[in-house]
Amino acid sequence: MVHAQDPLPSWNDTSTKKAIIDFVEQVTKEGSPDFVKPEERIATFDNDGTLWAEKPIYFQFQFAIDRVKALAPQHPQWKEQKPFNYVLTGNMKALLADGKSMMALMAVSHSGMTTDEFNQIVKEWLHTAKHPKTGRLYTQMVYQPMLELLTYLRANNFKTFIVSGGGVEFMRCFAEETYGIPPEQVVGSSSKMKYEIRDGKPLLLRLPEVQFIDDKQGKPIGIEIFIGRRPIAAFGNSDGDQQMLEWTMGGSGARFVFIVHHDDGEREWAYDRKSDVGRLDKAWDEAVAKGWTVVSMKDDWKTIFPPLRQ
Amino acid sequence: MVHAQDPLPSWNDTSTKKAIIDFVEQVTKEGSPDFVKPEERIATFDNDGTLWAEKPIYFQFQFAIDRVKALAPQHPQWKEQKPFNYVLTGNMKALLADGKSMMALMAVSHSGMTTDEFNQIVKEWLHTAKHPKTGRLYTQMVYQPMLELLTYLRANNFKTFIVSGGGVEFMRCFAEETYGIPPEQVVGSSSKMKYEIRDGKPLLLRLPEVQFIDDKQGKPIGIEIFIGRRPIAAFGNSDGDQQMLEWTMGGSGARFVFIVHHDDGEREWAYDRKSDVGRLDKAWDEAVAKGWTVVSMKDDWKTIFPPLRQ
Repeated sequence: MVHAQDPLPSWNDTSTKKAIIDFVEQVTKEGSPDFVKPEERIATFDNDGTLWAEKPIYFQFQFAIDRVKALAPQHPQWKEQKPFNYVLTGNMKALLADGKSMMALMAVSHSGMTTDEFNQIVKEWLHTAKHPKTGRLYTQMVYQPMLELLTYLRANNFKTFIVSGGGVEFMRCFAEETYGIPPEQVVGSSSKMKYEIRDGKPLLLRLPEVQFIDDKQGKPIGIEIFIGRRPIAAFGNSDGDQQMLEWTMGGSGARFVFIVHHDDGEREWAYDRKSDVGRLDKAWDEAVAKGWTVVSMKDDWKTIFPPLRQ
Repeated sequence: MVHAQDPLPSWNDTSTKKAIIDFVEQVTKEGSPDFVKPEERIATFDNDGTLWAEKPIYFQFQFAIDRVKALAPQHPQWKEQKPFNYVLTGNMKALLADGKSMMALMAVSHSGMTTDEFNQIVKEWLHTAKHPKTGRLYTQMVYQPMLELLTYLRANNFKTFIVSGGGVEFMRCFAEETYGIPPEQVVGSSSKMKYEIRDGKPLLLRLPEVQFIDDKQGKPIGIEIFIGRRPIAAFGNSDGDQQMLEWTMGGSGARFVFIVHHDDGEREWAYDRKSDVGRLDKAWDEAVAKGWTVVSMKDDWKTIFPPLRQ
């Protein structure tokens, strides 16, 4: 007897893996009452904590911190100026004490340049910065089981989207190469921009103002504005994903969502209700109450991170 | 000798048609110095005046007017209240005298309902409302040569997008069926929304506030935020498209844009520099100065509208 190749080899043979495969077979089998036309097979993925790690701090925050350090020599006044002095003296506790300090760093590091310049800066950082715990590049801090899920869904004619609170242009700098998700399928938070002609060349300048926040209630709104179709599958890991999962499950026909629970302190990090980063509290309660799948990284995932290429 | 079937049969054999075909062959021929990988073959189309007509007024304005008329019995006070009384007495001149009146009608007709309800209302209107001059459904007021161009580009692995000042959700009600453009490839203006759970069901409420205006400078910004890649081809007809065409031509490698000039008063409408709707003035000057193609509807198009199905 010949078995088809396992599409999800980094997933243990648990009920979670079975639930994923059952759902995909259910919606792709022609003639089945739950068959979904390929163009409506929309699957949305949160990024931080779902496709890649988010500890000790969101990687985009680390980018902002590294950027402020790189710019500091041109801004000697930052030595005396909050919150920049927190960065320069390594006072992470003060920096993360309230949301305002990080937002100030985000504004400085993410605006005042053209979109092309910003993309270049992010790509350089992604090619050089290393994660403090693992020493991996940040793009190597992605979850192997989730990469397999992306591939499996696309092989079944799903269109895979990122729907994340992260910056849309930041994520596009690696989403295509790392996840196989093209720029036009990345939905995220965005800054305002200004269109300008300089020396006869058009350019887009990034402004230090928020255009759209794609988090919590913003996720179903982002899905509606950017994608215009309700997903039939959605994957998240925190309270920021709760509304996206509700919105996905609220449609008719077969639907599937799961929440990744970070319960593997040995191979990754263990955190949930009390974590500042990627808090999973209300969404967990709703998942339990409604019978949504909760993925245990410890039990459901055979491996966490992809093997490093030699 | 066998000729391949003409991909653009509704285009006359003019230099415009040749320029389109030359460009497509140039970027799709493997090994050519101008070859563009399929995933980067992004083509953006304005909608009003480029894919469908826009006279005597933008069709979405006509929808708003018809909607106000339909709602009037529930709002007896509108008889005395500007700008609603303009609609009810047919005073189009007063209604269009300034932008504010139409914006008030747009707010009333486009908000206060869920996204699902709004889509239903628009679809009903599209299935019943007739154009005052031709008696056609509005979705039959599309340009046959442009439908062929969409098909031709897609056959050559272009990804076709709408990038229009029109409402993104309004356009999605017909873009897939009429143009073969799926919801996630429609970029447009949007309203703010509110996410809410009602009777245990999640819904999105449309609010009477603007989220994003996808016109003029907003078009390259919309392209950057929604698509995240610079188009290699773009098509418009008015000053509202000027920045999108500049942005498209500002990239490196082979690029192609054109402006549709409405110069056929007999088969369609003739208007340009002095028109309130779809004014073509500065963009025309730039097209001439930079050698962008200007399509003459009169000379370049064999037919304007598609034949009506029996």
